[in-house]
Amino acid sequence: MYKVDLNSDLGESFGAYKMGLDGEVLAFVSSANVACGYHAGDPLVMEKTVVAAKAAGVAVGAHPGYPDLMGFGRRNMVCTPKEAKAYVKYQLGALQAFAVSQGMKIQHCKPHGALYNMAGKDLDLALGIAEAIAEVDKDIILMGGSGSKMLEAGKQLGLRVASEVFADRAYQADGSLVPRSKPGAVIHDTDEAIARTIRMVKEGKVTAITGEEVSLDAHSICVHGDNPQAVEFVKNIRARLIAEGVSIVPLGEIV
Amino acid sequence: MYKVDLNSDLGESFGAYKMGLDGEVLAFVSSANVACGYHAGDPLVMEKTVVAAKAAGVAVGAHPGYPDLMGFGRRNMVCTPKEAKAYVKYQLGALQAFAVSQGMKIQHCKPHGALYNMAGKDLDLALGIAEAIAEVDKDIILMGGSGSKMLEAGKQLGLRVASEVFADRAYQADGSLVPRSKPGAVIHDTDEAIARTIRMVKEGKVTAITGEEVSLDAHSICVHGDNPQAVEFVKNIRARLIAEGVSIVPLGEIV
Amino acid sequence: MYKVDLNSDLGESFGAYKMGLDGEVLAFVSSANVACGYHAGDPLVMEKTVVAAKAAGVAVGAHPGYPDLMGFGRRNMVCTPKEAKAYVKYQLGALQAFAVSQGMKIQHCKPHGALYNMAGKDLDLALGIAEAIAEVDKDIILMGGSGSKMLEAGKQLGLRVASEVFADRAYQADGSLVPRSKPGAVIHDTDEAIARTIRMVKEGKVTAITGEEVSLDAHSICVHGDNPQAVEFVKNIRARLIAEGVSIVPLGEIV
Amino acid sequence: MYKVDLNSDLGESFGAYKMGLDGEVLAFVSSANVACGYHAGDPLVMEKTVVAAKAAGVAVGAHPGYPDLMGFGRRNMVCTPKEAKAYVKYQLGALQAFAVSQGMKIQHCKPHGALYNMAGKDLDLALGIAEAIAEVDKDIILMGGSGSKMLEAGKQLGLRVASEVFADRAYQADGSLVPRSKPGAVIHDTDEAIARTIRMVKEGKVTAITGEEVSLDAHSICVHGDNPQAVEFVKNIRARLIAEGVSIVPLGEIV
Repeated sequence: MYKVDLNSDLGESFGAYKMGLDGEVLAFVSSANVACGYHAGDPLVMEKTVVAAKAAGVAVGAHPGYPDLMGFGRRNMVCTPKEAKAYVKYQLGALQAFAVSQGMKIQHCKPHGALYNMAGKDLDLALGIAEAIAEVDKDIILMGGSGSKMLEAGKQLGLRVASEVFADRAYQADGSLVPRSKPGAVIHDTDEAIARTIRMVKEGKVTAITGEEVSLDAHSICVHGDNPQAVEFVKNIRARLIAEGVSIVPLGEIV
Repeated sequence: MYKVDLNSDLGESFGAYKMGLDGEVLAFVSSANVACGYHAGDPLVMEKTVVAAKAAGVAVGAHPGYPDLMGFGRRNMVCTPKEAKAYVKYQLGALQAFAVSQGMKIQHCKPHGALYNMAGKDLDLALGIAEAIAEVDKDIILMGGSGSKMLEAGKQLGLRVASEVFADRAYQADGSLVPRSKPGAVIHDTDEAIARTIRMVKEGKVTAITGEEVSLDAHSICVHGDNPQAVEFVKNIRARLIAEGVSIVPLGEIV
Repeated sequence: MYKVDLNSDLGESFGAYKMGLDGEVLAFVSSANVACGYHAGDPLVMEKTVVAAKAAGVAVGAHPGYPDLMGFGRRNMVCTPKEAKAYVKYQLGALQAFAVSQGMKIQHCKPHGALYNMAGKDLDLALGIAEAIAEVDKDIILMGGSGSKMLEAGKQLGLRVASEVFADRAYQADGSLVPRSKPGAVIHDTDEAIARTIRMVKEGKVTAITGEEVSLDAHSICVHGDNPQAVEFVKNIRARLIAEGVSIVPLGEIV
Repeated sequence: MYKVDLNSDLGESFGAYKMGLDGEVLAFVSSANVACGYHAGDPLVMEKTVVAAKAAGVAVGAHPGYPDLMGFGRRNMVCTPKEAKAYVKYQLGALQAFAVSQGMKIQHCKPHGALYNMAGKDLDLALGIAEAIAEVDKDIILMGGSGSKMLEAGKQLGLRVASEVFADRAYQADGSLVPRSKPGAVIHDTDEAIARTIRMVKEGKVTAITGEEVSLDAHSICVHGDNPQAVEFVKNIRARLIAEGVSIVPLGEIV
């Protein structure tokens, strides 16, 4: 039987600032990446998010980012692997306190934004992140982009790793994403995006923008809850996956 | 046999900013209150501090503060108990990650500065802090000033509590500290301070500034490592306590 | 001829976080209180807000707050007058750079949230704020609540001061606002709120919650742009004021 | 007659954290680069620093950095030129408020750390900084490394620019600094450093690490006040320059 995880970034509100339709998207995903107070999120938001995820039967993971609230963690910062390790450890621990309070465990860790992108290409940085996880709790799964250095780093340290794919993004022949700056990077047709995703899940293949067949692991699909259209898409892709015989289950049941 | 804990605030450096003679004071204390990134401290500093405490055989505790780096957590902020609870939980968890990485557990939690002072007088705020501890790890000891609301809150929730006394501060007849703004609040004579402390530890008594005998529990003595004179005092009081037959042991062996 | 200023807090977005319907409310107000990066706002938001205010013919003022982004500047913080003075000076200067860039001057300074409330009752704190203004630019008008210590402080230092009233809030016999925690504090009936406001502007009087007639100066009316209903109210009160022969003009033309 | 400016970074303390021997180094320099609250400094520190600079007859300049207090602004951050422009504008304005309060003007703007380094090589980023200055006050001098893109950007916008040289750093044949990671990057011999500096000031020449003669403008020499040895060096180089007939004057009298 086919199975896949649907993950979404949640708990990105901060103080008086609201972001994301967390309540709505929680009904459709299986794993929540919870912001941990560096690029987004604050303690009250984290608590609320963990409580809501538990109520919805959704697994929680840490979504650590760079200490750049003003840039929402989306700007590349040149941190050493040692700094990244300490930042991830700090954020993992902070979230763990809220998870433990609810009788939950942190299922996974998916770095955010620029940290995700930089560590995806830089093995030393990725190793810093993987070491943080290994030292805090070896059961935590490291989620990274399919084919990224993060998965390599996690494997080196004996962690379980999860390969994430994107429904609405085009891939290059080497399995990496077509950069957003290039034409064709984003797949705007919903049906096409869903059809591609189903194939990635069931066959482990995607057609590159240059025509080649690319093999990849689709343990988890990244979806968004920023706006009603995005939530509609999540609802849609979930229904279609189930109709195709694919179960939506938390990462922990996949890798 | 008499025993007491010597606790000191450590890990208060931040980024390029250095504060405190941590390396020196660690040789003389039994418990370290580690700043957790809100009023002081950062992830690299926390890691370094936990490693150094372990090497020195010193127990680690969390030293959570208000989110006020610019004011070093010393300014009263009107937070709700719910906010304080979430802030303490966040900071406890963050430190726990560094402790677990070193195979250590958090022994205690001593709020910092304005949070310590405000929660010492406000049971609701103190209960918020105690609830954070209870939900994260019921084995963590809540340290508060002797006679403070924090101890009352900890007991209400079934936590172990530790009563802290100050060697160099005068007490009022009700067991509270003479405010720093009042004359005689600080005891400048080292010998007198030490003699008073030994009596607090051995007899559980101190003479109030107005002459009354006050009973109090002296589970832990707060000492400082800000400057060479302070470290000299710690070395001194430790030696005198031992000479008087008092063992210096971590809190966990006392309460 | 009657005239009054309509002021609204703007530029409260921060990084990826959006707040307020700034574009819509700018069409109806005469003065914008621009957040300056401490409790809300960031440099890009400040620039955008000043540009938009200029385009709408709206005067800009500084809206300095406590350094508490997580609490949106709404939590009381015990800062010294000297600290408050330095914080206001910093924020005034920061906004001035954006105003000067657009060929504008800062018309006024209205402290935000907890700083507004605390300085409204504490003359020393209010004097700190007034001194900041006096030292940066004596032409900047200090806006505070009618009857507040801020107006007293501004007058002491020879500043122009503007007395602000609230359309939807009940007043006590001494001219202060009924605290939000008390019943009847907020006037929910739009027509009543507008009628009261018109009377405050034209007669300088309001009926206290306990029945007394209270005299006050209504130089500016505080309105909000948080949501469509709030914007609708601003549009409404503006139209009604004009229909009653009251001109809506920036503060600088009033005090 | 020969003349040169001696500039030093000051006002880098933050809250309870002290950094730099500002009081001592002020006796020997002619221009102070004042941190503006992003990578270091806070409003109270800025005020104190401006007051001290005025008392010492030292000109003040802005020392804006990236919003990275935890990294002291030393870590490369990928900000857009538009972001950098807004950040510099904000910090310039903030400092201006303190300068104006003391009847002073901001003489110059020297970006800090990673912003200095990145803008030194990236004309677009440098133009963002130069535009911020041009829009706030065209009289402010932009200080950058000799041969850097910052000087080019400043000239493009019609600003006065100042070329900064380093006494203790080796230069490459193209006029750029030998990276610190390379052997020979730092000149440890004080006499050699001073002799090289005197030659840069009087002849506008320095010998590259590879032997070539390099021409450069030495409008200002960067010196440090981090520790007693550094202050001793400043005292020393100042005395030697004067003995060689070089006047130490603020930048404004040079470019």
